[in-house]
Amino acid sequence: MRDVTTASDRRAVSDGSEFDRDTAVTRRLPGVYDIDLSAGWTVAGAVNGGYLLAVLGRALGDTLPHPDPFTISAHYLTASQPGPAVVRTEAVRTGRTLSTGQASLFQRDERGDEVERIRVLASYGDLDSLPDDVRTSATPPPLPPMDQCFGPGDRPAAGPGVGSAIMDRLVLKLDPATVGWAVGAPSGKGEMRSWFALADGRDADPLSLLLAVDALPPTAFELGLSGWVPTVELTVHVRHRPAPGPLRVSITTRNLAGGYLEEDAEVWDGKDRLVAQSRQLARVRLG
Amino acid sequence: MRDVTTASDRRAVSDGSEFDRDTAVTRRLPGVYDIDLSAGWTVAGAVNGGYLLAVLGRALGDTLPHPDPFTISAHYLTASQPGPAVVRTEAVRTGRTLSTGQASLFQRDERGDEVERIRVLASYGDLDSLPDDVRTSATPPPLPPMDQCFGPGDRPAAGPGVGSAIMDRLVLKLDPATVGWAVGAPSGKGEMRSWFALADGRDADPLSLLLAVDALPPTAFELGLSGWVPTVELTVHVRHRPAPGPLRVSITTRNLAGGYLEEDAEVWDGKDRLVAQSRQLARVRLG
Repeated sequence: MRDVTTASDRRAVSDGSEFDRDTAVTRRLPGVYDIDLSAGWTVAGAVNGGYLLAVLGRALGDTLPHPDPFTISAHYLTASQPGPAVVRTEAVRTGRTLSTGQASLFQRDERGDEVERIRVLASYGDLDSLPDDVRTSATPPPLPPMDQCFGPGDRPAAGPGVGSAIMDRLVLKLDPATVGWAVGAPSGKGEMRSWFALADGRDADPLSLLLAVDALPPTAFELGLSGWVPTVELTVHVRHRPAPGPLRVSITTRNLAGGYLEEDAEVWDGKDRLVAQSRQLARVRLG
Repeated sequence: MRDVTTASDRRAVSDGSEFDRDTAVTRRLPGVYDIDLSAGWTVAGAVNGGYLLAVLGRALGDTLPHPDPFTISAHYLTASQPGPAVVRTEAVRTGRTLSTGQASLFQRDERGDEVERIRVLASYGDLDSLPDDVRTSATPPPLPPMDQCFGPGDRPAAGPGVGSAIMDRLVLKLDPATVGWAVGAPSGKGEMRSWFALADGRDADPLSLLLAVDALPPTAFELGLSGWVPTVELTVHVRHRPAPGPLRVSITTRNLAGGYLEEDAEVWDGKDRLVAQSRQLARVRLG
């Protein structure tokens, strides 16, 4: 067995990064990895879907010849619990510039039977090999400076998700325009915007972007809904390696219909580059 | 062996629908389906990715207990050719309201070896079981009446994709504001809008929506690029069963960077309902 770490991982782990420690997978056999899912990344008791995606992404990065997830699609099957899990990976196709893999995470239920929690397909490449050309009409989200935004300590300790373990691992500073839900006055718009960083100061990388897209309070809160919004499917495109420093994340829901909604995320780095885009389909369970 | 057809399929097939005939899969064994990929759905010789997705979607609809693709994520591995193919499916998880499956399409190369073309994960449900609530801020694309839009017969027979076989199967009537590329004057905006219908008059359904999201000329043309734009990954969310009649499809690219672009599609039906959303990551190969 060995820990799956790259040179930069080792630096981060030796610096004590919670994210690297808690997403580290141990290769038991080729394509079989052990991990102990940390209770530190739960929201109201459920393991965060972005954290899980980063775990699977790390295992795939070890299995595939290319280092970076360019596009990763996850279908969430059953709710993961903190504790032991096994990740099984498969290299589906290896190409010159892209390789495609599949991964699943399993846990044992109370009877000892293996239950699949999440299955992903992903295509990996090397972000550093891409040309520098950018022709974008996208613009960074309008977000006030961080010291004018609101974190968990800046508002009454109430509302969904407050007090969740994951909040201790993240620096989230929400745009005041999108925190009405926290004081019982949701805007009615399906928008949430926030600064995002890891609380221990670890810099962003493609794996932590997989966490960033699913770390904000759900847009459903600003739509006036307060229940659980479980993810059915989440696809992330990593478009550029992020620069050090805090990220800006905006999530948007345009269509809530038939008990489902889509949530689109954009992640921007300090150099005003769109570093990740994601979309998820989630169910609305009224609280 | 038997053809996999539902009651509505049988009606459509008996009415002579090209789409139903060419996406019909024959079950050889549980989870193993044969199909002859039709040359009628090619673009410049390559089998259209939306047509392939519909083929896989039809096989999964037979494998899973739920009828409709709610979210389907495809990773394109190698270019499909017209001719025989095998689809293998797996029911990953069966739940009360959602079930999740996986499918792959294989063809044989010149040496007779099996090559995987495309792999998908999908979660299926029953669109008819969803509540009627709609709270959307999305609005239909601004599209002139069909008779003021442009089809392949209305402009010089030049430009990428013109004369492709798929154009005979579809009614595409493009917004004049987004056809500059066809006369050498691309707008520079990553937008394309069109009316969409099947040429033989077959009504839209969730399977044909999987085709509709990938049937327009690529946004890259309006960005002034003329090469091939192969899809790496395409995820479609089907949000509502479409009403009979032509659909409106808009596709948008905001971020072209590092040789990749995302293409977001929306499909609206005649009752002004957002019936499908999709996003794909595509490579830009300059022509």
